[in-house]
Amino acid sequence: MCSVPRSTSVSLCQGVMEGLLTRCRALAACSRQLSGSIPCRFHHCAPGRGKRLVLSRMFQPQNLREDQVPSLEGGSGDLTCKSQRLMLQVGLIHPASPGCYHLLPYTVRALEKLVRVIDQEMRAIGGQKVSMPSLSPAELWRATNRWDLMGKELLRLRDRHGKEYCLGPTHEEAVTALVASQKTLSYKQLPFLLYQVTRKFRDEPRPRFGLLRGREFYMKDMYTFDSSPEAARQTYGLVCDAYSSLFARLGLPCVKVQAGVGSIGGTTSHEFQLPADVGEDQFAVCPSCSFSANVETLDLSQTNCPACQGPLTETKGIEVGHTFYLGTKYSSVFNAQFTNVHGKPSLAEMGCYGLGVTRILAAAIEVLSTEDCLRWPGLLAPYQVCLIPPKKGSKEEVAAELAGHLYDHITEAVPQLRGEVLLDDRTHLTIGNRLKDANKFGYPFVIIAGKRALEAPAHYEVWCQNTGEVVFLTKEGVVGLLSQVQVV
Amino acid sequence: MCSVPRSTSVSLCQGVMEGLLTRCRALAACSRQLSGSIPCRFHHCAPGRGKRLVLSRMFQPQNLREDQVPSLEGGSGDLTCKSQRLMLQVGLIHPASPGCYHLLPYTVRALEKLVRVIDQEMRAIGGQKVSMPSLSPAELWRATNRWDLMGKELLRLRDRHGKEYCLGPTHEEAVTALVASQKTLSYKQLPFLLYQVTRKFRDEPRPRFGLLRGREFYMKDMYTFDSSPEAARQTYGLVCDAYSSLFARLGLPCVKVQAGVGSIGGTTSHEFQLPADVGEDQFAVCPSCSFSANVETLDLSQTNCPACQGPLTETKGIEVGHTFYLGTKYSSVFNAQFTNVHGKPSLAEMGCYGLGVTRILAAAIEVLSTEDCLRWPGLLAPYQVCLIPPKKGSKEEVAAELAGHLYDHITEAVPQLRGEVLLDDRTHLTIGNRLKDANKFGYPFVIIAGKRALEAPAHYEVWCQNTGEVVFLTKEGVVGLLSQVQVV
Repeated sequence: MCSVPRSTSVSLCQGVMEGLLTRCRALAACSRQLSGSIPCRFHHCAPGRGKRLVLSRMFQPQNLREDQVPSLEGGSGDLTCKSQRLMLQVGLIHPASPGCYHLLPYTVRALEKLVRVIDQEMRAIGGQKVSMPSLSPAELWRATNRWDLMGKELLRLRDRHGKEYCLGPTHEEAVTALVASQKTLSYKQLPFLLYQVTRKFRDEPRPRFGLLRGREFYMKDMYTFDSSPEAARQTYGLVCDAYSSLFARLGLPCVKVQAGVGSIGGTTSHEFQLPADVGEDQFAVCPSCSFSANVETLDLSQTNCPACQGPLTETKGIEVGHTFYLGTKYSSVFNAQFTNVHGKPSLAEMGCYGLGVTRILAAAIEVLSTEDCLRWPGLLAPYQVCLIPPKKGSKEEVAAELAGHLYDHITEAVPQLRGEVLLDDRTHLTIGNRLKDANKFGYPFVIIAGKRALEAPAHYEVWCQNTGEVVFLTKEGVVGLLSQVQVV
Repeated sequence: MCSVPRSTSVSLCQGVMEGLLTRCRALAACSRQLSGSIPCRFHHCAPGRGKRLVLSRMFQPQNLREDQVPSLEGGSGDLTCKSQRLMLQVGLIHPASPGCYHLLPYTVRALEKLVRVIDQEMRAIGGQKVSMPSLSPAELWRATNRWDLMGKELLRLRDRHGKEYCLGPTHEEAVTALVASQKTLSYKQLPFLLYQVTRKFRDEPRPRFGLLRGREFYMKDMYTFDSSPEAARQTYGLVCDAYSSLFARLGLPCVKVQAGVGSIGGTTSHEFQLPADVGEDQFAVCPSCSFSANVETLDLSQTNCPACQGPLTETKGIEVGHTFYLGTKYSSVFNAQFTNVHGKPSLAEMGCYGLGVTRILAAAIEVLSTEDCLRWPGLLAPYQVCLIPPKKGSKEEVAAELAGHLYDHITEAVPQLRGEVLLDDRTHLTIGNRLKDANKFGYPFVIIAGKRALEAPAHYEVWCQNTGEVVFLTKEGVVGLLSQVQVV
């Protein structure tokens, strides 16, 4: 099948290949042993020990003590919310263009943890991960008429041949065409739950609030294909439950509310709303029964609950998830069929489900943080532990070595914390100043080797950010406490 | 700082929040226990056991037995190479538009494993992971004159305000502007090694060979910032060594060759070439000394090694990595400075380093596979084990239960194989037919519960694809063998 012209170098090439493959396998066999002997320019290394991650080498473009926070969206402070301000201030994000941000190392760590939690929840309900191109051909969108309907929200471009594309803000068309291409699908194979976590693009008229409303952002989008409306409803419920489980694990009190279907379409839709002042949605909940709805779906005159007639209360929310029961809206356009139990072709019943991945991160910071200090869902904190050794030249300086040993001991005794413990080696600063920074960053655990580290046995001061407790513990006590920490 | 108008719902909202947070934490506490009780529609479940991954539910758009492979790039067979043909045939990729592919579930698993190996190697040399937007403002590219120089390879677009962007094929401009924004950088903080693994875009005139030359693809790009040319050279060597270590771990016999700098620029450059017939690069190696170079860097008349004068041999290769020593080419344009040891501002010395992530995957399949059967680098195989129970209605059918128990036993006794074992539950097919499929897919280990599973003790037939061995092992033997498997 390979129609590439075979050159005279073929047999040579194969001879070279064999020799190389042999050498390469030998190399592979010893690369494991070698990987411990990488030069130590980037870490503090204790001889015979693992590497220590040190704060002074982190790339964080903002100076913690500078008030000047970069903004491309108007002057400083304008249009800025708490999460955006804090994230810019401590160097989690950096503006690239309106609505587009560089995600800096701490944020990438948190984001990757969030994606792992999402993967766990999606896999648990049978989700299969795919990755669809961002470049989405115009003809797909013309088929559903959304090339026109989406208007200015679509970012459009032409390739060198003049062919039109948009940058996908969502992928109903693409995934339905993909499933439609599978010509021998049987009802026995369904449901399919296909999802991806990729960058999406939307030309927002007014991008704002940092990662809460950007033009380029990460979204988890899932598309489901079922063999009957009943099965599709069951799948819809299953995905909604997975979303509830996800938000519960993150400690985010999201509310599932009935919602409109917008440009996506379909017949049933729900939003997952995280109550917050800066939220751009308004939703109503009934304190007496389980009713809740985006106010867009209610009559303006409706102040009482349609279910129990009790008074409704309104709250602002950030939409962090959205689910749609689509029926055959897209499968009928692209002819996404399967063979049903009677041997007849039948259109797949679809659903689609979105999670704003970068938005969840910012929304969590928005609701969990104080005005001055970042707080993370425990599972998503970029580093679980910050260890502060004494100041250089202070009375406690001799405890510096103990702090190093404690670092090594933690990462040996608590394997899930490998790569999760940061040493604040800026020992020209006082413990107090570094504790203030650590508090601002929101590490779930801050451990200080101070005065009481000189006692026998040494005691370390442990700040548990998420409970507000401060305790003094021995090395064993520290390990006992930290071995409880869940890391994803 | 938050200038959003505070509505009357604020205090309500906070009351609601507190109640919700309390409920949510309680939910989170029990969600762990609940996660085992998800409905079993998507997996075979043995009571009290974990879920089993079954082949019949996998989404793989191509029928293994169909010869018709979809292609957007000319007729079937035309311009197609082995990896592209095999990947299309078994449902690893599906064409979306010229040079753009849907990555299907197996490929996403392999890709995520490759990214984990890359992350390990980059972290080991102090790499910090960032994520820069794909939308790249024209003004950045105008500053280096590459807006014009890159010509038709750049995919360009305008937003709703008429502002010009390209879709980043590489990020020297963006990352240098980012580092330049950090005004208080000291030589003590350097080097910075910033990298990302993101989608890149290049409007290839002739996209071809599947994932080997696409228009939208995953690339790992690293950018380094050093305080002196000497330090930058040291970093350059360190990254090259990390690349060599990566390819050795994957078992790919890549050759580091001297290369031209092209549109990236700089003074020194190397390519990592994987010898292969379909490779579009031609490189020369000297069998007598360590000299090797892309032929583009040699005089046409040069047939002898410039180092030892011995004869050169030429080989075709696939470029899987590329490194550049940039000096101050970009830092001088964007004024990326640091304060040097004398307290004076000084321009950062830069390097940039690329790995074609999707290309490495396809290139590995290209060189490791036979004409008919896919082979993976062991570390990257989407699933490590395929377990084949007997055919329904056959004499061996009673061994079906044993196969199920073996599945559970493996995933319990070898924790790193959880999620890595697939049960081929298509028991309407013979063992022989399913073995043929398994061989085509290239699972590193195929385990068959056939005739000898009825012996006491049961013996299973184990095919080790990468060594070509077939052995009969008891349950304990299987576990002993599989516990050696490295999973990333």
